[in-house]
Amino acid sequence: MTKPCIICVAITGSVPTKADNPAVPITIEEQVASTREAFAAGASIAHLHVRDDAGKPTSDPARFARLKEALEAACPGMIIQFSTGGRSGAGKDRGGMLPLKPDMASLTVGSNNFPTRVYENGPDLVDWLASEMLAADIKPEIEAFDLSHIFQAAKMQADGRLKRDIYVQFVMGVKNAMPVDREVFDFYVATLKRLSPDSEWCAAGIGAGQLTLNEWCVAGGGHART
Amino acid sequence: MTKPCIICVAITGSVPTKADNPAVPITIEEQVASTREAFAAGASIAHLHVRDDAGKPTSDPARFARLKEALEAACPGMIIQFSTGGRSGAGKDRGGMLPLKPDMASLTVGSNNFPTRVYENGPDLVDWLASEMLAADIKPEIEAFDLSHIFQAAKMQADGRLKRDIYVQFVMGVKNAMPVDREVFDFYVATLKRLSPDSEWCAAGIGAGQLTLNEWCVAGGGHART
Ligand SMILES: [Zn+2]
Ligand SMILES: [Zn+2]
Ligand SMILES: [Zn+2]
Ligand SMILES: [Zn+2]
Repeated sequence: MTKPCIICVAITGSVPTKADNPAVPITIEEQVASTREAFAAGASIAHLHVRDDAGKPTSDPARFARLKEALEAACPGMIIQFSTGGRSGAGKDRGGMLPLKPDMASLTVGSNNFPTRVYENGPDLVDWLASEMLAADIKPEIEAFDLSHIFQAAKMQADGRLKRDIYVQFVMGVKNAMPVDREVFDFYVATLKRLSPDSEWCAAGIGAGQLTLNEWCVAGGGHART
Repeated sequence: MTKPCIICVAITGSVPTKADNPAVPITIEEQVASTREAFAAGASIAHLHVRDDAGKPTSDPARFARLKEALEAACPGMIIQFSTGGRSGAGKDRGGMLPLKPDMASLTVGSNNFPTRVYENGPDLVDWLASEMLAADIKPEIEAFDLSHIFQAAKMQADGRLKRDIYVQFVMGVKNAMPVDREVFDFYVATLKRLSPDSEWCAAGIGAGQLTLNEWCVAGGGHART
């Protein structure tokens, strides 16, 4: 029943700035150094956001290209996952880096509330991002911010908009979306298994919630994220 | 364990037009006639949308005022519930009729996808609609399109943005949102009971899904909607 635990590392989110936390790696050099440490410690997936020169989140394909190249040199064999999240851009800009063919990319398949706004992932944008990932042979990591997103991912798998064996990340602890809740976590795992038996999953929490989720994850057969 | 079954009738949704179904009541006279029939048959809550002269959904307070007045005369004692749904308007227009003080009003507390677009209910709009309902002493019917909406409603109840004893409607069968699924339905009921033990609930389905949901509802102690 034990399977190798994939550690997924998100060294730079899209929200914190140097002003919040001077230790957050922002430049590509800082990101490579942090990822190399995590890779040496056993992390196998690097979930990547990039920042512009002012430290603000961006979807700039040139930035993603430089980071990918640097990480491939520094961490050979590590799985590179680009974020297509909406904090870094809007509309199709969010997928402009997909032709760079990372191993994986994040994909949110529904909409929900964030702390101060609507996280907009309309049906057309979702289908377009999925089709770009299919075209470039990129494995999506489905970001499930709510229960219906698991149903939507399974439906997209069934009708061919996603490749078989989907990989889902349960995102919990975001204000105005789903809190970190053990019953929901267990129901997420059971629902994914019911709808898509060969899928894999991991979980991401905000701040202190991540430690709690990692314990549930490892105990439940999912992957951990740090 | 049996409690009186409240029948909630939505005679005119926001989507169908006369072109889709000539039997859909659109004018206020047609709505009053249909609601009177449902009231005579035992329905106790009328969930109301209004249309403009061209038959298109609107949030026009003058229309809501005429319909409310006509229904109070035709169906004395029936509970009048106005829709603040986003198909009939945008932003604060959606709550412009709340000063008319209906008994209830629908309130969506999160965002999700609809068949062709994002159903936007950003945090500020949700809080504003809830505060208008508190000010006018209107009981909200929380429209739960996804699981996190139940958590959000319970949180709003706990921190005073909603009045105690919330009333939640589970909405299932909307494309790109939550399908009609028995396990989810049971989890919705259990979660609401866990988070807000004194709350009540009903369920709404799209088309044929409504009949299935009514069976689950009546068996599970919820209210039925026709
Ligand atoms: Zn992951
Ligand atoms: Zn991310
Ligand atoms: Zn109802
Ligand atoms: Zn409605």
